[in-house]
Amino acid sequence: MALNPNLPKTANSGIPSPGGPDWMDFVVLLKSGDRAALGRALTLVESNLETDRPKASALLDVLSSSAHTAFRIGISGIPGVGKSTWIETYGMRLLEQHPDARLAVLAVDPSSSVRGGSLLGDKTRMEKLSVHPRAFVRPSPAGTSLGGVTWGTRDAIALCERLGYTHVLVETVGVGQSETAVHDLVDCLVLLLMPASGDGLQGIKKGIMELADVIAVQKADGPLMEAAQQAASDARAALRFTALEENAWTVPVLTVSALTGGGMDALDDALDRFRRHALASGRWNDRRIMQRKKAYWEGLQRGLWDLFENQPGIRSEWDQHAQDVLEGTVDPRVAVERALELARRKA
Amino acid sequence: MALNPNLPKTANSGIPSPGGPDWMDFVVLLKSGDRAALGRALTLVESNLETDRPKASALLDVLSSSAHTAFRIGISGIPGVGKSTWIETYGMRLLEQHPDARLAVLAVDPSSSVRGGSLLGDKTRMEKLSVHPRAFVRPSPAGTSLGGVTWGTRDAIALCERLGYTHVLVETVGVGQSETAVHDLVDCLVLLLMPASGDGLQGIKKGIMELADVIAVQKADGPLMEAAQQAASDARAALRFTALEENAWTVPVLTVSALTGGGMDALDDALDRFRRHALASGRWNDRRIMQRKKAYWEGLQRGLWDLFENQPGIRSEWDQHAQDVLEGTVDPRVAVERALELARRKA
Repeated sequence: MALNPNLPKTANSGIPSPGGPDWMDFVVLLKSGDRAALGRALTLVESNLETDRPKASALLDVLSSSAHTAFRIGISGIPGVGKSTWIETYGMRLLEQHPDARLAVLAVDPSSSVRGGSLLGDKTRMEKLSVHPRAFVRPSPAGTSLGGVTWGTRDAIALCERLGYTHVLVETVGVGQSETAVHDLVDCLVLLLMPASGDGLQGIKKGIMELADVIAVQKADGPLMEAAQQAASDARAALRFTALEENAWTVPVLTVSALTGGGMDALDDALDRFRRHALASGRWNDRRIMQRKKAYWEGLQRGLWDLFENQPGIRSEWDQHAQDVLEGTVDPRVAVERALELARRKA
Repeated sequence: MALNPNLPKTANSGIPSPGGPDWMDFVVLLKSGDRAALGRALTLVESNLETDRPKASALLDVLSSSAHTAFRIGISGIPGVGKSTWIETYGMRLLEQHPDARLAVLAVDPSSSVRGGSLLGDKTRMEKLSVHPRAFVRPSPAGTSLGGVTWGTRDAIALCERLGYTHVLVETVGVGQSETAVHDLVDCLVLLLMPASGDGLQGIKKGIMELADVIAVQKADGPLMEAAQQAASDARAALRFTALEENAWTVPVLTVSALTGGGMDALDDALDRFRRHALASGRWNDRRIMQRKKAYWEGLQRGLWDLFENQPGIRSEWDQHAQDVLEGTVDPRVAVERALELARRKA
């Protein structure tokens, strides 16, 4: 079933209007597994355009009755640690060993990227996965903002899950803020480490280690084997410093080589154990509920903010008060009172 | 100079109205170092009453021309680590060695305290400090909320600073959230550790180690000396795992005994070095500016939220949408759209 090329299109996605005659055709096409339709649906939910919002909501709503559940896995690690190679190896093993598995690979691309360009823009880094019939590799959308609320990536994950993908991998670039954001989007965060130890050689930002559910030291092959094992030992020692809550998951630290496949069996086991532990303890469900609540309340807070900020004159006056605060001439509390007075008059 | 007992009083603080005939008398009294006046001023800025806000703002505003600058130090550590003993020892040494020093001791008391009662409620824990003429020990206000914005403690610190206190110590209970909050309020965060090592014995919550500027293992005396040194060595190893930014401060890990005073000289040195490093590198000023900006924007966001939330019917409808999200029947983005529609009509 092909879409009528003469349909009215949105600026971004080429998806018919909700409720219109072609809307359900598109939904059926999407549900059938059509990759082009999925690509357009992702473009829609990732869109920042105000005009695309109602349509994105309608799409999520029409799919919300889906009973599919995916294992959402975040992959984090500094540039050069081998995230793409790891995803290619992990993904191909998964699809070969589980004939029912379907894998989607997405990326969180912080807007303040120092590197420029999209993370997965070079699809050839996942040569086999990107052409596998049961995999969908999504190049990172350019310019997606990653503030407090990450509707784009959040909804992209939900979309893939509802369409029956059994595994959704979310790659992040290791710049700190994106890890915190992705932690709120996945069931399990895998942190990849370098086979290097001590004195900050890992290049890990503060607070990232604490977010990981499974840690794997990469490149544990050939001459780097020993360094990888030392790094794993150091990471275990660092983790032992933090208190464990009752019945908490003990974060395993493994060594793997995505290149040779060494250690990948143990990693599969660790992910399986994590999943079973999280399901049995109720933490799986708790985490998803917490994530949904956070998305709702933070989204609402952001939405209310936008209601004011977009009114003429407000933002520039707010910025003026911020400047006073920055220069230290006005106390923050006093400045807030003044800024709110303005908002009260405009509300 | 005594306040006229027949003055009109606010519910909370007994402070005359701004602009009224007795207002400047009170300000002069406060500036003269009167402790009772300071106590009432702190009660005012810590008040959560809507009606106290304009007066608290006026007080901060009238003092804002003060050129005094204090060294704001946060003290964190789990219950039993000896925070009060440490403050008593540190404070008395400071006052004895520096005749010009004036010390204020405040506390951040998370509203969700599991322990009940106020942190510093038992002033006798700081026997010498609490009666020292150049010290002011503030019992923690009961029921102070510690959400995203901590006006109360924030303004209390600002007040003490503007009244000429050279050092402001802020004690936190080690429950995670309060450390993050206090980190946004101080120039330097000191983390006290137990003389115990490995497997979470420290009882530190995830992410706290990363906030510390100076770490000291307490109770390094008598039979615990060796355990304290081992704990310090473990802490150093754990810290080495995180990447350092350029020109970053290397967090020193010391061993001290607040009981015997052992190691307190080295700790003084560490705090001095931190202060000089922060001033010379510009980080001191950057951190204060960042804190003020955060207080302003977060306070504004919270204020806008309150504008809506306090309108009849809004909160209950928002909670209903939240319940739908929690149960998984409605997508968070869809729920936010619906909740915003309601706010738009009410705005």
